[in-house]
Amino acid sequence: MHLVAIGGSDAGISTALRARELDPSVDVTVVVADSYPNFSICGIPYYFSREVSPWQSLAHRTHADLEATGMQLRLDTLATSIDVAGQQLTIRDADGVESTIAYDELVVGTGASPSTAGIAGIGPDGLGPDDGVHVLHSMGDTFALERYLDGRQPETAIIVGAGYVGLEMAEALTVRGLKVTQLQRGPEVLSTLDPELGSLVHDELSRHGVDVVTGTRVDGIAQDGGRLIVTGVRDGNGFTRTADLVLVVVGVRPNTSLLTDAGASTGAGGAVVVDGQMRTGLPHVWAAGDGIVTHHRLLGITYLPLGTTSHKQGRVAGENAIGGDARFAGSLGTQVVKVFDLVAARTGLRDHEAVSAGYTPLSGTAIADDHKAYYPGAKPLSIRITGDISNGLLLGAQLVGARGAEIAKRVDTYAVALHHGMTVESMSDLDLSYTPPLGSPWDAVQVATQSWTRELRSQTLARA
Amino acid sequence: MHLVAIGGSDAGISTALRARELDPSVDVTVVVADSYPNFSICGIPYYFSREVSPWQSLAHRTHADLEATGMQLRLDTLATSIDVAGQQLTIRDADGVESTIAYDELVVGTGASPSTAGIAGIGPDGLGPDDGVHVLHSMGDTFALERYLDGRQPETAIIVGAGYVGLEMAEALTVRGLKVTQLQRGPEVLSTLDPELGSLVHDELSRHGVDVVTGTRVDGIAQDGGRLIVTGVRDGNGFTRTADLVLVVVGVRPNTSLLTDAGASTGAGGAVVVDGQMRTGLPHVWAAGDGIVTHHRLLGITYLPLGTTSHKQGRVAGENAIGGDARFAGSLGTQVVKVFDLVAARTGLRDHEAVSAGYTPLSGTAIADDHKAYYPGAKPLSIRITGDISNGLLLGAQLVGARGAEIAKRVDTYAVALHHGMTVESMSDLDLSYTPPLGSPWDAVQVATQSWTRELRSQTLARA
Repeated sequence: MHLVAIGGSDAGISTALRARELDPSVDVTVVVADSYPNFSICGIPYYFSREVSPWQSLAHRTHADLEATGMQLRLDTLATSIDVAGQQLTIRDADGVESTIAYDELVVGTGASPSTAGIAGIGPDGLGPDDGVHVLHSMGDTFALERYLDGRQPETAIIVGAGYVGLEMAEALTVRGLKVTQLQRGPEVLSTLDPELGSLVHDELSRHGVDVVTGTRVDGIAQDGGRLIVTGVRDGNGFTRTADLVLVVVGVRPNTSLLTDAGASTGAGGAVVVDGQMRTGLPHVWAAGDGIVTHHRLLGITYLPLGTTSHKQGRVAGENAIGGDARFAGSLGTQVVKVFDLVAARTGLRDHEAVSAGYTPLSGTAIADDHKAYYPGAKPLSIRITGDISNGLLLGAQLVGARGAEIAKRVDTYAVALHHGMTVESMSDLDLSYTPPLGSPWDAVQVATQSWTRELRSQTLARA
Repeated sequence: MHLVAIGGSDAGISTALRARELDPSVDVTVVVADSYPNFSICGIPYYFSREVSPWQSLAHRTHADLEATGMQLRLDTLATSIDVAGQQLTIRDADGVESTIAYDELVVGTGASPSTAGIAGIGPDGLGPDDGVHVLHSMGDTFALERYLDGRQPETAIIVGAGYVGLEMAEALTVRGLKVTQLQRGPEVLSTLDPELGSLVHDELSRHGVDVVTGTRVDGIAQDGGRLIVTGVRDGNGFTRTADLVLVVVGVRPNTSLLTDAGASTGAGGAVVVDGQMRTGLPHVWAAGDGIVTHHRLLGITYLPLGTTSHKQGRVAGENAIGGDARFAGSLGTQVVKVFDLVAARTGLRDHEAVSAGYTPLSGTAIADDHKAYYPGAKPLSIRITGDISNGLLLGAQLVGARGAEIAKRVDTYAVALHHGMTVESMSDLDLSYTPPLGSPWDAVQVATQSWTRELRSQTLARA
């Protein structure tokens, strides 16, 4: 049995690790487009902040660690086409030489690429890394940006986008001494949260000197002498800002051509359609990671690329490709980000997402201390609960508060509750831990759900 | 409707709050034995460490806050007997004057008292607070100990017991400059954890100068001049240690006489038997808190007094007493304690508990970082998973690691999983949050469960 996995990031490597773990007799080859298999893309901002050094530390596992598991790695190798009927993969090495690899089972984890959609002047025919216009999704992007920072010593940066990577890079570049302007299309940063919670993140950025400009659509990037000029529209008027460096981090688009050329279909977000077992519909061809649609426990099929999801999908694909019967249990969109001294997290749905999925949501925000107020260092958490007023089901939670307030693991409590379809009210049944320095007899998690239930009761009474 | 709750601690106050929340027309009277309703008993060690000051800060709510909810408080009032048929409670005020209160529904939350079982020389006919021999379960105990510390300036202390309160007080008295000896009957401190994890707590105590002596049964306390002499048996030999102060914190026994005199039955741990709705079996008489048996989701009926449980039981009793139909969902014994810079937590069962409850457990310990190792400050967590080898069910988890490593909320993830009867393997399906400064793509919680599954697989293969 020869299993071939395409992709050196979370999905491909998880596939290979799982297959080798379950059956050490399986031959596994991983085709990796660059020289950096199993690098932690999520860690790149901390390389730029110089909290992580050298860059080699970003590897989840070294090349040697990976080969010690018995997998073969083909680095600097592009997969160019799949012969589904012949069970052969065509590859091209760094010298441009094409060859084929026969496979019994193939798992495609080609991931996604940075989107620059709608911004003129960037890309192969426009400005690029040497001009100071960067994207950030690979180690290659990382080296290019580091080279520019080191060589040109830019003093000012514009970050287009205020999602997870954008916020982390705003922090990193600020820490490195750059004056950062952050441009966000929507009304508030971190649009994965409701604006009332996103505004807390906005305040944290401002407090650290980041100039946040929301409600701004960026249309183009141009160069004038040594300066980069970002143009767009804000409040119906033209908007112009200049800087020494521009970083565009506005999301990703799935890399699908390898699979679609072989006959696979695309669905949500333009990603490749798979079933819950990671089957593409093409015989002996599976897929996982940022290139495929996401099975969401509350939304059904959507596109929500996340590293945690890629790990799980790769693990399922690796198990099934060698004859197993695993099933991806589905995403809840659980996410967390640290921005300076603040942590923001979410899981499940927000109002508008819930409405479009057919739920009847109510959301309410409570402020609860992370631990007993009498014990030093208690910090308020803002917790926004979304529940369904028709059946009381918990639909989602958003949390923002100080670093050190155990927010990352509090969102996990909600994630497990969502996984099991709990009602908001039944959250009070959970036997959560308590000691005054670290919690309360009713944890902040439950203070928030009890507050939601009271809000629902008062609304119901008001209507009666 | 007149609801009377007996007890000013978690159970009684939760009863009263819940009843008033659900129906503000209900008259609620709370009979409180001392002058300190709704104090956080769990916070007392932090008063002694001087992290909490003044002592009034330990109130969850002030007297005024409580009365603002509409409940009536009868302070310094002992409930002495219940006339079940007549629905009357006899009480005695601070002046010794007896009177009666008529009730429609009665909730008894008389709690528990410190145990000194098996130790001679302590108690009404022996040594007490004025002699430097203390227990610690009420504000009265707190004032007595503070008076002794302040007045006598003891330099050395012996703490008998190394459970939650014992460990917290070892820290508190050490912080105050006393040289502390901690005596523990069992083979390791914190006997609610397996010894291999308890030993990490032991090391932390030693590192901070606490002289920990395990395997020591204390039989008696005597006085010789100004010194207190603790005697007992260790390794089959006589054991003697002297100090200026002795604190006995070896657990509690339920206060049941009020209810048993009225005809209630006792069960596990000598506590009063109630059903899942907090009914005592006596008409219109309910009970909650440390005086009653504990419905445990994995063990059935046991006795496991915890503040978090008392809050939940009181809430159920308060709702049902005014005509509701709530049910206590059951305890999982979730607990956490901070000891100097270490945090230890557990939920569910350990091997021997699981065996005696009819399960077929396997336990295994994994070491996993709290967040990505490449990001500064990563700390190893020791996580011990107990699962059932016959059906793969998760049975329990124990965690020990550094403060700041989000252990308190990681144990909650296991608690929610246990609540829903998850298998160890299915824990990998959970969509938990990840960002490099706060977690890993597979959270430490899942690293540990995956390790358990591998251990089970290798044992199964070895047997085959």
